[in-house]
Amino acid sequence: MAFEGPVQDLIEEFGRLPGIGPKSAQRLAFHMLTIDTEDARRLANAIVQVKERVRFCVRCFNVAEQQECRICRDPRRDPTVLCVVEEPRDVMAIEKTAEFRGRYHVLGGAISPIDGVGPDQLRIKELVARVGAEDVAELVLATNPNIEGEATASYLARLLKSMGLRVSRIASGLPVGGDLEYADEVTLGRAFAGRRDL
Amino acid sequence: MAFEGPVQDLIEEFGRLPGIGPKSAQRLAFHMLTIDTEDARRLANAIVQVKERVRFCVRCFNVAEQQECRICRDPRRDPTVLCVVEEPRDVMAIEKTAEFRGRYHVLGGAISPIDGVGPDQLRIKELVARVGAEDVAELVLATNPNIEGEATASYLARLLKSMGLRVSRIASGLPVGGDLEYADEVTLGRAFAGRRDL
Repeated sequence: MAFEGPVQDLIEEFGRLPGIGPKSAQRLAFHMLTIDTEDARRLANAIVQVKERVRFCVRCFNVAEQQECRICRDPRRDPTVLCVVEEPRDVMAIEKTAEFRGRYHVLGGAISPIDGVGPDQLRIKELVARVGAEDVAELVLATNPNIEGEATASYLARLLKSMGLRVSRIASGLPVGGDLEYADEVTLGRAFAGRRDL
Repeated sequence: MAFEGPVQDLIEEFGRLPGIGPKSAQRLAFHMLTIDTEDARRLANAIVQVKERVRFCVRCFNVAEQQECRICRDPRRDPTVLCVVEEPRDVMAIEKTAEFRGRYHVLGGAISPIDGVGPDQLRIKELVARVGAEDVAELVLATNPNIEGEATASYLARLLKSMGLRVSRIASGLPVGGDLEYADEVTLGRAFAGRRDL
């Protein structure tokens, strides 16, 4: 026997979300039963609102409420430096550091032949068009430091260096607060290779 | 800088759910951005529906779409045996075993003085009223085998045995497929204490 109709429906909907297994979906559904109707409606409404009001920036493909995102509309940002990332959440992670004052370009993923994602599935031709049309002097490649992200960074470096840009890659190395002893050998190797004179 | 308004709102709403930390909430919110509006609306609607259509059975306090839940309305269920559980999800777990053909009584929790939950916060007086009004001959106490569940079971056993009922407790012991070597000592002790003649 399954649960009563609406409960079962909700369990199935929660279960479709990434990282939510059947047990978590069940727990969440029963949680919704116990909370105030007001709170449940607020969640439902937030889901609807995000679909209705959020789109992607026509320039950099970050999330935006208007044609362009907040960062592209901000005149204080340096338009000559672009930081290339995989996803909008990466933009937010970098913004939190307050280290970067240029603009972004969101690729929408990374090159991954195993998942059928090649350069054509990413917003690479849009990036090339921006570099041509805007006054871009430097690119910082901030794709993830994993196989797909590295492959994407190499591909972009080859493609864009030929256009006369300064192209850099964010550093790999030991995380701050980390322990040398517990670092994996690839990370530690990178930390050595990327050592800087003091 | 926070995320664009609606994205931030959704992250906060997801973050209020049990077991969803800030990172998961962010991942879920960005997932909603990438899926079809149709799918997002289905989730939002399932949340609203569960609040609008699901209530608690007036008899056993299981989840129900009508006055009484499916199990209480089912004439094939034996009304003389009641299984007492903490939550509606426990009803569903027991139903999946197909071992029990009686009805249920959902307490809505377990006795836990540390959380301020005493017998009066649970549906114990409703249980006593049912035992008086319905033709109940046997009670199976299926609260969780942890401190709160055991305390609740002991309390109920003392209270209800005096009413001339057969009161039993579900067995504690080694899980099927488990390894004796890895069992904790309390569970293994219970398995010995509850041994059955063959």
